This record gives sequence, structure tokens and C-alpha cells, in this order.
Amino acid sequence: MSSVRVDFSNCMSEFAGGHGIDSAELESLYPKLSAAHEAVHQKKAQGSLGFMELPYKTEEAKKISGYAKKQKAKFDDFVVIGIGGSALGNIALQTALNHPYWNLLSKKQRKNCPRLFVPDNVDPELLKSLLDVLNMKKTVFNVISKSGTTSECLANFFILKNALIKKVGIKKWQEHIIISTDEKKGYLRELADKENIVSFTIPANVGGRFSVLSPVGLISASFCGIRPEKLLEGARYMDRKCGSDIVKNPAAIYAAIQYLMYWKGKKINVMMPYSQALKDVSDWFRQLWAESLGKKTNLKNDVVNLGPTPVKALGVTDQHSQVQLYIEGPYDKVVTFLSVEKYGTTVTVPATKARHYLEKHTLNELIKSEEEATRTALTKQSRPNCTIIFPEISEYTIGQVFYMLELATAYMGELFEINAFDQPGVELGKVLTYGLMGRDGFEKEKKEIKEFLISKKNSKYIV
Amino acid sequence: MSSVRVDFSNCMSEFAGGHGIDSAELESLYPKLSAAHEAVHQKKAQGSLGFMELPYKTEEAKKISGYAKKQKAKFDDFVVIGIGGSALGNIALQTALNHPYWNLLSKKQRKNCPRLFVPDNVDPELLKSLLDVLNMKKTVFNVISKSGTTSECLANFFILKNALIKKVGIKKWQEHIIISTDEKKGYLRELADKENIVSFTIPANVGGRFSVLSPVGLISASFCGIRPEKLLEGARYMDRKCGSDIVKNPAAIYAAIQYLMYWKGKKINVMMPYSQALKDVSDWFRQLWAESLGKKTNLKNDVVNLGPTPVKALGVTDQHSQVQLYIEGPYDKVVTFLSVEKYGTTVTVPATKARHYLEKHTLNELIKSEEEATRTALTKQSRPNCTIIFPEISEYTIGQVFYMLELATAYMGELFEINAFDQPGVELGKVLTYGLMGRDGFEKEKKEIKEFLISKKNSKYIV
Repeated sequence: MSSVRVDFSNCMSEFAGGHGIDSAELESLYPKLSAAHEAVHQKKAQGSLGFMELPYKTEEAKKISGYAKKQKAKFDDFVVIGIGGSALGNIALQTALNHPYWNLLSKKQRKNCPRLFVPDNVDPELLKSLLDVLNMKKTVFNVISKSGTTSECLANFFILKNALIKKVGIKKWQEHIIISTDEKKGYLRELADKENIVSFTIPANVGGRFSVLSPVGLISASFCGIRPEKLLEGARYMDRKCGSDIVKNPAAIYAAIQYLMYWKGKKINVMMPYSQALKDVSDWFRQLWAESLGKKTNLKNDVVNLGPTPVKALGVTDQHSQVQLYIEGPYDKVVTFLSVEKYGTTVTVPATKARHYLEKHTLNELIKSEEEATRTALTKQSRPNCTIIFPEISEYTIGQVFYMLELATAYMGELFEINAFDQPGVELGKVLTYGLMGRDGFEKEKKEIKEFLISKKNSKYIV
Repeated sequence: MSSVRVDFSNCMSEFAGGHGIDSAELESLYPKLSAAHEAVHQKKAQGSLGFMELPYKTEEAKKISGYAKKQKAKFDDFVVIGIGGSALGNIALQTALNHPYWNLLSKKQRKNCPRLFVPDNVDPELLKSLLDVLNMKKTVFNVISKSGTTSECLANFFILKNALIKKVGIKKWQEHIIISTDEKKGYLRELADKENIVSFTIPANVGGRFSVLSPVGLISASFCGIRPEKLLEGARYMDRKCGSDIVKNPAAIYAAIQYLMYWKGKKINVMMPYSQALKDVSDWFRQLWAESLGKKTNLKNDVVNLGPTPVKALGVTDQHSQVQLYIEGPYDKVVTFLSVEKYGTTVTVPATKARHYLEKHTLNELIKSEEEATRTALTKQSRPNCTIIFPEISEYTIGQVFYMLELATAYMGELFEINAFDQPGVELGKVLTYGLMGRDGFEKEKKEIKEFLISKKNSKYIV
């Protein structure tokens, strides 16, 4: 079977020179890395790391794909109403595994699957425009919020539900909704119960950014012809590969080199796929890495203000945008290439009268050569980089990579001695928003932000 | 008229505390900033900064829009074949100024304009898929490369031209091509002359990343109903605003605060629009900033390895992904918000039985409140940020912002004492690619990279 591998040669000083890691340095981290592995498995045993249980929920995956198979012909359009962890995985799966112009294909070309829309913002222009292109009578909405209370999700839901009711009536709208939320609590759970709406459960011990292999990611994927069983199979394979022999554990090794690089001042982790299909995997990873590892305090409550900054890039496109900086700028980056050994198709540059050096080569050769050249150029200039190798892009390999990166994130939390599973920093912004929106109970915050804004009212610092 | 402003209050220590800039510090930079302004205008006078001349090329803008008006009804699809600076501006213009689901609208809804495709990569899957959705008989290709020799552009062009000839024949394909390239030299110029293909000139003194207001960006925009005259009008307005009184010059002030922030260790510049429409302006900016300012040596040829890292984010979406890190992580960032005072539409959250606090509010209020809350939360935690304020999104304001950021980049080059207009760092990758692709004359590079790859062949650092 196709096994995803991590090549970290170019992070080692043998290849990357002065900015690389010595083998002795890596080896001296092994005890801590083993302890991290143990700690993660202990947390799993205690039931607090639900993402590690997801690969084994094969019955649920079957249920979801069976449900989607029955329903999908009824609908022309599938809309995910969610944000952050309730949208990024859905987008990443679709971009990775389906036609890049999916929504422009005929329904027949899409093998009877619906178009997919993920309007993951509360932008009035975006939402209004979405209404221009949906045929409500043939649209299904998957409302996703673990808490069942996320403002952005509910705002969009209330608007779209209203538009839906206008088209299909007060007795039928429920048939156009699928709810994914907590098993017991929250507004969406109550609504599902009251209105008898189809619903799926997001396990309480699975955080949003670790939820792509739960119903959060699997429902929209299944409607679009992606096989959830194969995703989980890939994740299980990776789970087995990531055993207690940490030198053979790709998630542990990935975490180790990223951790060491961070303390060498490489605080920016650029994820750069050489494949258009993988571009949104970087975007999904951006949330996972930033929200899990960007923390003010460690477990001892010391102020640490740490966390690597994930950056998404795209090969070859960003060779014409970012690589100049990566090659010549500050030594503050480590690049994670995503590399595809076998693309899904081969395209040949035809012979031309120009007798150009490209002719009769394939685009496949060109993109691979550019990848290899960029990797080599970086390495030769002591710019550390590693490569996650996909034998091909499939549900099986994508499932492996999602799981590997989630597990690596958990290990990173242990290495940094922080809680990788909370996000306390977004609280202030939330309550200030409630204040501005006049929500009951947030009068203090309203006053606080209004005062702050008034203090700036006549700022001389506007030009 | 609608004037774009820069609010940098939250970069000042009065508001941002210890990580902010003191007014005295800013003022002490003014002499250097004035000198930078002078130096830029001197270079302009010498004819080396073509981007500063573009706003005044009104005749050409009229010619382009007139041409597009006549031609566009003939075509259902417009394809930009370009990469980097020959694609990012086109994408940014389209996303900012047209319907977010443009390619899904009917031709009537698009007011007779074509769909737009910008496949700015050499990915075999992407290119093959593009062929699935184009109707060649109704497609026009705008091939854009200043040098006329860019590998990625030519590879895609040769493939698409071949497919085009198969559909429309060897005598008609030329009518489906528009070439944008150098006035005199390069393969594309020769081809235009030989085959009598419509062509536009990219001025020799305009670099790719500064070319959005040249034919590079204006042709696809005009075909899609965007008014180039208005873009240039905005740019001219900004040019006048950016005068020698640098305290009133928004490009100079933006450069000054970014420069000071860089030396305070804020080496990451996050551009975060609170508007889906502006998301690709950040991507365009990413190239401008990274490629112009990421440099190994300064003008005295000292090794400096400097350059801020531009990062694109999106509000409110990235509040659920990146803001945790921005609030709690290392003090290594300055955020540039792009803020829209008046959105193009208003969407109201309807009343629901839930009696939710959101009901009867508008999405406009929600997105603005979240923006204000995030900005305030960052500032209160001494995370410096500034805001570029768009009164509304229009050709006029977008033209202003493009020009302002280009000019700010030129000032940054002067402040850093580097050449902001070259990109020597990408050369090694290019020649190694030629080597791998077997291009004549690159046998040495072929040997070099092959040897390097062999040295890693049995790397033990793969897991």
C-alpha cells in the first residue's frame, strides 16, 4: 500500500549546513520525544484525545457514506455552514480529491454529486452572492458547529434558512438541513430534536481543528463522492506506523525537527505543496498548527508567548512570489514541502516550431524538476526544509497525512509543555464582539470597547 | 471622492504600549523618509520606475477597454496564461471587483462578459481539468510574460495552443490569442509579429510585481467589465496624495511604521482584510513585499539577509484559525487590516423563534464588530496593528491601494538600502531546473544537481 513518508534530510546539518540539526542534537531529544509519545497515549487512554479514536469509527463512516449515497441525487448543491475547524477540513478534502473546477462540471460529470459551497465568513457580499447561484429547492445545508452556538455559523444559518423557507415552505425546509453538533447540548441540538432534522454527532472530546475525520469533514466529502472509509483506513495505517519506536514514527520525527528548528530561530513553518490539489491542506494545517501551539502560558502557567507561525505557499506558483525571500531573507524559516510522486494524469508539451527546450517534456517533469531545484537551491544555501512525500493523492494518503499532522501537533504540545487543545486567546475578541452587538450580559465589554474606540476618535495617526 | 486612509494609531505606543512606536522615534525617521521619497522620485525621473508612470497612461487604458468592449461578446471564456506578477494582479482585481461566484453566473448575469480562468501553475491535473471545462471555440487566451520566455507560461501556452488548434484549425487560432509582452524582444514578441497576433506592450521599466496597472492586469479586467480608466484615476489620486510632505503621505507613513516595526522584531507582516473581496489583494501584496524586500545584500554589497515575511489572512475567517497565535504567540508580528467602511450590500439576520441576540442585526454589523473587537483585543495586548481604510470597494479605491502599496515598497527599499526591483535569489532554482530538464547549455547545473540528489539517495533521514 501507498505509505506517506517524511524526508527530513535537508533539516540535518549534513545537508543544510550551519542552520541544520546535528544528529547528536536530534538524538538527545529522543527521551523527551518518547515521553511526549507516552503522554499523548496516556491522554488518549483517559479519553481526552478523541481525534485518535476517529480512525476506528468505521461504522459511523459507513453510515455517513450510505446516507450520502441515498440522498445526493436529490440535491444539486451542498452548502457547508461552518467556520474554522468546521470548514477548513471540508475545503481541503474537496480540493485534494475532486476536480479543481468541480462546480463548473455538469451533474453527470460529477457522477450525480452536488456542487459544493463553503461560505466560511460572515461577509454580506459573499452571502448575498451565494443566494444568487443556489437553487434552494435542490440545495442541502450542512450546519456545523460543535457547540451549536458559534455566532458566524448561526448568523449565516438564520439567513439561509429564511431564504430556504421562502422557497420550499415551512413544512419542508427541515428536509434540506443536516445538523452536525454536540450529542446533547447547544441550540443546534435542540433544533434538530424539535424539528426532527437529520443530525450527526461531533464527539465532545474532538476539538474543531482535529475534527476533519469526524462527521464534520466526512458528510460533505461523502456527498461529493469521496470515500470516508478510505480516509479512515489511511488514518489507521498512520496510527499503526506512529508507534512507540519514535525513530520510526513520522509524526514524532516531524514534531522533533520542527521543535528543534523553532529553538534555532526558525519560527516560521512554510508549508509548500507542489500540487494545486494540496493547496488547501496547507490552509487546514495553518489552523491546526497556529491555534494549537500559539500560547501565552505553559502548563506551569509561566508566560512563554510561543508558537511557530504556519505559512501557506504553493509550488511552483510561489517560486514567482515567495522563494526570493525564502532563499535570501532572514534565516527564520523551515519549509515543509508536500511532494507528490505520481500525479493523477500526464500532460505533454507538444512539439512546436520554436524547437523549445520544453517540447516533448511533460508538465509532470517540469513541476517535479522545479520542486527538486527549489529544494536543492534552499538546501545549498543552508535553508532547512523537509518533505512529506505522497506516493499519490488519494483518500488513503490524505487520511494518513491528516492524522500524522494532528498527532505531530499533539507531540509538539508536549514538547513545548503547553496545552495544545485550548484557545484562550480568542476569548477577548469574542466578548468584545458581543459587547458591540449589544448582547445581554456584555454591557461591561460594550463600555470597555466603546471607551477604547472613543479614545482613538481624534487620533492624529491617520493619513 | 472616496479617499483611502491609513490609520496607524495602534502601532504607536500611546495605544499599543511597549511594543509600539514612540512619536519621537517616528519623527526621527522623517529625514531618512524624506530622502527615500526624493530618491524614489529621482529614479522615476531617470525613467527606471515605470510603475509610477502607469497611472498616467490613460490613452492606453482607453484603448484596452475599447478593445475589450468590442471583443468580449465573442468569447465565453477568458484564460490568463501567466504566473507570478503576470497573474496575481489579475486575480486580485477579479476577486475584488466582481461577483464571488462569477464563473457560475449566466453570461447575461455577467453582462455579456466571459468567465475568467487564471491557471497560474504548471500542474498536470490542473491543466488537464481546465481543458475539461473550456469551449475552445469561444475561448480567448491572454499570454502574459514580460520577457516572453517564462518556462511556466510557455509550457502551458504550448499545450493550450495545441488544444486550440485541434478545435479551431491552423488558420484561426491566432484570433483566440492576445499577447502581452516586451515591445521588442522575446519569443512571444516574435510570435506576435510572425502570426499577426494582437499584442500589447509591457513597458521595459515595469517589473512583473509592479505591473498590475499595465496591460498585464488591465486586459483581463476589461474583458470582465472592470473599468481600467477608473483604476488609473484612483492611482493618480494616490500619486498626488503621496507628495513630498511625508507626514501626509500614506505610502511613506506605511513604509515608516513597517520599517520601524521590522527593527523591533516584528518581522512578519500579516495582511488581514475584513472582506472576502479583498482576500486576493493580500496575495498580490505578498509577492510585492516578499520579492522586493527579501534580499541577501544591501546596496553596499554587505550581506544583510533581511526582509519582512508577508502573510495573508482573512477576517473573520481566520479569527477561527490564526488570531489565537496573533494574540498569544511571539511578539513577532504587525497586522495590516484592510477595512471596508461600506459594503456593497446589506444582509439582515431575520427574526427567529430562538430570540437570538443576532436577530435583526445585519451581517454588516457583525463583520464590522468582529473586526473592531479583534483590532481592539490585539491592541490591548500590545500587538501592533494598522488599518488601511477603504471607504468602499471600487476601481477607484483599489487603484489607490495598489499604487500606495507599490510606492510604499519602493520607499521600503530605500529605507532598507536594498534594491527592491531585482530578484537574484531565484536564479539558482531556475538554472537547476534547466539542468534537470536537459536544456542545452546547462550541463554543469545538471551534473551539480544530480550529484546532490545522489548524495541523498540512501539518506537515513526518511521515516
